[in-house]
Parts: sequence; structure tokens; C-alpha cells
Amino acid sequence: MKELEKLFERIILRTSINLRELNIDVQPMLKELLPYDKLMKFYAFYGITSSHPLDMQFTHSCLSGSYFLGKCRVKNAVLYKSDIRGDELKKKGDLFAFQDQKIPLTDDEGIVIEDSFLNKTLVHNYSHDPETLENFFINDTISLNYANIHGSPTSGCFLGPFSTVDLTTVTDSVVGTFSYVQAGEISHLNVAPGTVWVKKDDTFNFLYRYPMAQLNDFVYFSGGKPPQGQIVDFVEDRKEAFQMVFDKVNVPSSIPVPKSASLDRYAVTKPETHIGENVLVSQRAFLQNAWLGQGANAQENCYIINSKLEGNNVTAHGAKIIEADLGKNVFVGFNSFLRGRPDCRLSIEKESIIMPHTIIDAREKIVVPAGYIAWGMITNPKELEANSMAIVDFKNINAHFSKGRMFFEGSGAAFVNAFRDRIHHILEANGAFYNASGANKGHAQNNQNISFNTLQPYPQGRLQGLYPTLVIKP
Amino acid sequence: MKELEKLFERIILRTSINLRELNIDVQPMLKELLPYDKLMKFYAFYGITSSHPLDMQFTHSCLSGSYFLGKCRVKNAVLYKSDIRGDELKKKGDLFAFQDQKIPLTDDEGIVIEDSFLNKTLVHNYSHDPETLENFFINDTISLNYANIHGSPTSGCFLGPFSTVDLTTVTDSVVGTFSYVQAGEISHLNVAPGTVWVKKDDTFNFLYRYPMAQLNDFVYFSGGKPPQGQIVDFVEDRKEAFQMVFDKVNVPSSIPVPKSASLDRYAVTKPETHIGENVLVSQRAFLQNAWLGQGANAQENCYIINSKLEGNNVTAHGAKIIEADLGKNVFVGFNSFLRGRPDCRLSIEKESIIMPHTIIDAREKIVVPAGYIAWGMITNPKELEANSMAIVDFKNINAHFSKGRMFFEGSGAAFVNAFRDRIHHILEANGAFYNASGANKGHAQNNQNISFNTLQPYPQGRLQGLYPTLVIKP
Repeated sequence: MKELEKLFERIILRTSINLRELNIDVQPMLKELLPYDKLMKFYAFYGITSSHPLDMQFTHSCLSGSYFLGKCRVKNAVLYKSDIRGDELKKKGDLFAFQDQKIPLTDDEGIVIEDSFLNKTLVHNYSHDPETLENFFINDTISLNYANIHGSPTSGCFLGPFSTVDLTTVTDSVVGTFSYVQAGEISHLNVAPGTVWVKKDDTFNFLYRYPMAQLNDFVYFSGGKPPQGQIVDFVEDRKEAFQMVFDKVNVPSSIPVPKSASLDRYAVTKPETHIGENVLVSQRAFLQNAWLGQGANAQENCYIINSKLEGNNVTAHGAKIIEADLGKNVFVGFNSFLRGRPDCRLSIEKESIIMPHTIIDAREKIVVPAGYIAWGMITNPKELEANSMAIVDFKNINAHFSKGRMFFEGSGAAFVNAFRDRIHHILEANGAFYNASGANKGHAQNNQNISFNTLQPYPQGRLQGLYPTLVIKP
Repeated sequence: MKELEKLFERIILRTSINLRELNIDVQPMLKELLPYDKLMKFYAFYGITSSHPLDMQFTHSCLSGSYFLGKCRVKNAVLYKSDIRGDELKKKGDLFAFQDQKIPLTDDEGIVIEDSFLNKTLVHNYSHDPETLENFFINDTISLNYANIHGSPTSGCFLGPFSTVDLTTVTDSVVGTFSYVQAGEISHLNVAPGTVWVKKDDTFNFLYRYPMAQLNDFVYFSGGKPPQGQIVDFVEDRKEAFQMVFDKVNVPSSIPVPKSASLDRYAVTKPETHIGENVLVSQRAFLQNAWLGQGANAQENCYIINSKLEGNNVTAHGAKIIEADLGKNVFVGFNSFLRGRPDCRLSIEKESIIMPHTIIDAREKIVVPAGYIAWGMITNPKELEANSMAIVDFKNINAHFSKGRMFFEGSGAAFVNAFRDRIHHILEANGAFYNASGANKGHAQNNQNISFNTLQPYPQGRLQGLYPTLVIKP
């Protein structure tokens, strides 16, 4: 694997150089973690539809097991089982509103990944940075298992396992294991593991830090070895079900799917799963005895098991919902791990917001009341009390506030409204509000007719493991 | 299927215009034959190896079920379940010998298909035309089921079902059903169905015409309806076995394959098939209880059933061998249909040449003696006698000769030697002479490590059935 080895070396060197001021050397962290033996095993694939842009270029890269949709460029990069979804990018001529300016786009926005190693990473949505409207770049960056890069141009970064950067331009920074950052723009920061941080200029700032001893039990990464913990085990235990989905060229749906909904052929569905109207189930979603009411969605890498979602539920990228009942309009953020048990189901009542990267592991009966916001580490009603609040109360926060390990400053109303707007946008983009007259189409409707092309690497020789150069246009 | 319909219309119009001097209108011939309903069903695919060139461009075309290897360009064309093998093309810098000239190639040769409809057609080998060394073109051409375009640039032609053009530049011509033409350069000819014609300038000229009543029973095409006959039925009856091969992403070999041999994962193998050293089995070959001795090959669209091939056998594109025993170095030409029966097996002894497009249907015991050449329609020993000859005798022909429906003029020795050279080249190119020291590698060895990428069309909308533009480079 001559060229591929050189490529990895180069990516690691470039990332380390970008992180030199933080004194981070990624080389020892990645030792034993480069999946050489697996890079030959899995095909890459991309979607062809009549409703999405089609504009891809792959050069001198390894794309093993990765999925692409929309406008993407990949150069000198290793993408292993990653999802690159360029289906909500901005278009040429769009006006981007920034304060009271409207900036016109001179070209369709594209995701451009260079000199990076993305391992089981999800890349989605558009760059919200007014400095780089046409170019959602990811360069000189290493991201590990189940990281999400969501609308976040990223340069010179190391993103730990199960971390998320969301609507943030990130430069020369480390984002620790299971940390969530939504902060507009950050640079030269080393975000500690288990940080949940949502900041909007001077308007609001939400900060939570996990108790490390408890978090480590769920997800832990120290470098040189694969991530460990209950969440990792949970995902590993369900890996085989996906193998069968990827082994066949066509997988007919085993359950009824309404005409207004879509179930990706690369999703796993086990009995007795129910798909309601306007439901979106994305690739690599895992559904087992899952009841999805009208307008619910199940995004990439999410797991919904023995659970009922009443409707208009967002299950964001990487979220897990087990033995739980969710009311209408409940939002579950990125990578959250919500686990009830058969004898003490988890209940989340309508209109509640589960913050990204929340862990609720119910060993006693836990009920998140209607209209609540919850965050952080919750294993019993007492911890729920310390890590949640009625949204109406949250809206009344005006300056400083802290509760348990959470710290907030700024306008609670602005924070809640930003969240509500975002949730509405997500449901809208996913097609939850589609109606029979054909209005409000979203992903659930546009993804119904999709063809998949598959890609494989050179099987041997100097270029073994690398993919040929490919240019794909309409 | 708006764009696709326009594309078909345009191809038919262009071909008809090229054939206007022959008074041929292909429109009524193709009525009911355009496979619209099937064009969405089958993926196209192409091979990636470290031993073949990789240089493809697909533009505004439908490629349904077709396979590509090497350097190919396809534009404004419909290729349905066709094989485009650009793996024996000439290279930049090669010197092409013509009479006493050596013409250097200024670029790698490529197969360039434009404005054409190729239906279950095989395209292979390189253009032998000194006028067009870098460009193996196929344009304004329609070819039907199981036609072979072998080293033959083709412009403005209609090639009937099971026809073959071989080492011939063909312009504005019709080649009839089951006809074989190897004639250097032809133009504005209407070659009648069932013609077998091998001509080399003034050196030799071999001509055989099938008795139509007998041929029609095996293959018949009158236009407006699919081809009919026993050969067509034979192929149709075995179609389903291929479906299973195409439905899976990976098909592990069910039989042992020596390290010096290759068995394509898109071939069908049924018990008890034996693969010897240096054997090549190509995609879409069908083997059932087939014993392939060292250096034998089974090329695209060939069928070998309940038969034993002793070694160094060529089974050319589209040949069928059923209930037969073939000695060493037996050559079976394109699209030949050789059928013994369990109670009267067909025997073809060593060093024999079965001319392209030969039909031997043995209802009595038939033995083609060692060192014989056979052609045309043979169903019993008497017809064998009329349609074969000892090669040593054939070599003695000096001027004119005829036997049965065969006519020959020129040098029998030159004809036989040309054939022998060709057979030697085919075995060599296919890797039959490979030895343990690593010398004489050919397709059997180079095809061992091959990855396949798959392609699908737009699933709906104006472009439904058309494939996106793709550029594939190393």
C-alpha cells in the first residue's frame, strides 16, 4: 500500500503542523488506528437523483465505504465509511443574509475535502460563515469515529470520536471526545472532552462539561487504541446487520413505506418497524421495532429501538433512542444516547428539546416533562432535575444562570428561539410538512427515487487502496 | 423518458441516413425492439485494475447493463448489456507495421462510440486500419443481439443479430443476421444473412453462404420483432442464471481456481466445472459441467455445457459448445453453435479449426478429425464431409476451389497461416502460455485482481434512463 501509506503520513503531518501551537502531535494518537486492512473491503457509493445537484470530483483519495450526494470535491484524502451529503448547500445567486447585508453567491457552494482523514464522519449542511460562502472546506483535518462536521468549515483540526462541530468555522483546534461545539468561529482552541458549548456572539453562551468519570464509562478515547465505552459497544454490536444491507445490489423494502416518505436502501429495518407519512429514514439508520409517526426523521447513524416517536420528531445524526416513548415535536440532538429499559422505559413528552450530546441512561423510570429542555448526563430523576428546565423558565433567563454543571449567560429567549427556528428548518428540509398538494417537498420526498453508483479502489499494485480519479457531472 | 426517446430517434435517423444508398430504413426494423422498460433495470459497470489502462468518458448516454474496461469514450449512445473491452488497444509510441512501413502512434488508441445503439454487443481488440490507428470508432451504427465488433471501426452501419465484423473497417453497410465479415475494408455493401466471408486483399477470399431455410431454424430476424430460432431460445433459457450473479456485490468463486487462471465474478459456473492452469473465463461466460484444460479460454457470451476442452482451446466471443469433447488446440470461432447430445456427443479432434459462425447440430455421432477445418451448416456426417477439409489439403489450394456452398480463391496456405497466427496471438494475449517464472502474462493473469464500479441512470425526470457525465482517469 505504498501510495496510501504516503497519503496517511502526509495527512497526519499536515494536521500536526496546524496544531503545533497547541502542542498536539496526532501521530501517536492514531497509532494502530489506521484501518489499512479494512480500506480494501468496502465500496464507496454516490447518489444520482433528479432533485439533487450532481457535481463530484475524486482525486488521489481513498473513499472506502463512504457515501456522497450533491456537490463534493475530495483530493488527497482518506474517507472511511463517512457520509458526505452536499444536498443542502447554497446555490449560485442565493443571497446570504448577514446582519443587514445580503451577500450574493457567485457559484454553487461545494464541500471541498483535502489532505484530511475522516473516519466514520458525517459531513452535512452548508457553511454559515459569511467569509467562505461558496466553499465548505475541510482540510488538514483528522476526525474520528462518529464525528459530525455540520455546516462547519474545518481547517487544521483534530476532532475526537463522537464529537460534533456545528455551524462553526474551526481552525487549528482540537475538539475532544463527545464534545459539541456551536460557536460561530473558533481558532487555536483545545476543547476538552465532554464539553457541550453553544455560543452566539454576545447574545448567548451555553456551556456544560460532563463529569469525566461518568462519561468515560460511555465513551473514552486516549489515543493509540480504538474508542471504548458503552456507546461504542452498542454501535459495534449492531455492525453486522449493516453488512447484509451492503452485500446486495438491490434491497427491496421489507415494510410498507407511504408515498410521502422515504426509507433509504442502506438503512437497517427490523420488525416491527412502522413508517408514517412524511418520514425520512437516511442511510446507515438502524430501526428495530421503531414506530415513526408522521414527519419524524431518523438521520444518518441514528438507532431507534423498541421506541415510539409520535410525530415531527427530529432524531439527529448519530442519536440513539432505546426503549423510549417520545411525544410530538420532540427534538433529539446529535449523538445523544437515550436508553430506557424494558422495565423502566424512558418517556420524553411533547415539545421537549434534548440538547445535542445528551446521555440519558435510565435505570429508574425517567420522564422528561412536556416543554422541557434537557442536557448532559442523566441516569436518574435527581440528575434529570439538575440537568433540565422548563423551556418557559429558560426563556426568562436574562443575564447569568447556572444549574448543576451547566452555565448560561445572555438571553434565554434568544437561545430557545434559535433552537426552535433550527428545529423548524430541519423538519421543513426533511419534508415533514409536505402535503398532498405537493407543497413543502423535502428530503423525504426527494430521496424516494435515487440510484446508487458504487466505487472500488485499485485492487493491487502501487496504487492499491486508492481510487481512480473520477469526475461526475449532470 | 423524454431525452432518451430523443436520443433513440436521433441514432435511428443518423444510421438510416448513412444507409440511404442501400435503401435501408432501420426505423421499422427496430419497432418494438427498443428496450425502454429494461433500460432502467440493469446497472453498468467498469473494471479497475493495476494492469489495464483506465481512461473513460461517458456523456449523454444510456449504458444499461454494459461493461467497460480500458480506454473508452461513449457519447450520445445507447449501450444495452454490451461489453466494451479496451484492453488490447495500441499504445502511444507503438509502431504499427503496414506493408514495409512502420507508423508510430501519436496517442493511446481508444474506443470511441458515438450516436450509436449497441444491443448486447461485444466490442473488443484494436483497429487494424492503418488510416485510423488511434481511434477505434463506432458511430451512427446500430447493432443487435450478440453482434461482435472486433477490431472493426464501424460507421453508418446496421449489424444484424449474431453478426460479426472482424478486423474490418465498415462504412455505410448492412451486415445480415449471423453473418461474419473479415475483409479489411468494406463500404456501401449489404451483406446477406448467413454469409461467412474472409478476404485479404488479393491473397485469399473465403466465402460461404448458409442455406437460409436451415439457418432460419437456428436464428432468424425479419425486423419489428425480436430474433427467433433455436440459438436465441438457447440463450434466453439461460438468462436467469446471470440475474443471480448480478444481484450480489461480491460473488465468491464456488470452485477452485488455480493461481495462474482467472474466473470472472460475472461469469456463471455450475457444477462440476473444472478450471485448469492459465485458463481465462470472461464475464458473461456460462459454464456448466465444463472441463477446461490448461490454457483454454471461455470468452464473453460463450456457453460451455457438459463438455471437455483438453487445453489451449479458444472459445471465441459468443461460441456455444454443448455435449462435446474438444482436443488440444481446437479453435472455435465467434458465435459458433456446436451441439452434441448425450447419446451422440460431438467430437472435435486436436488442432482443428471451427470457422466463425459454424453450426454443428449433431443428431448423429459427428467427429471432426484432427487437423481439420470446418465451416457452415453441419447436422450429420455427410454435411460434415461437404463442409470440412483436412488443413494440409486446404494449404495446397492455389487458385480457385469450391466445396459444397463454400468458395475459395487465392492461397490456401496463406489463409491457414493467417488463421494459425491469429489463434497463437489469441492464446498468447489470453495468457495461455504463462509460466511459473512469470513470463507470458495475459488476460488470465491480469484479470485476477479486478475491482468493479457500478453505474446507474437518473431514476426519474427528463433525464430518466440517461447516465450522468462521467470522466474516469488513473
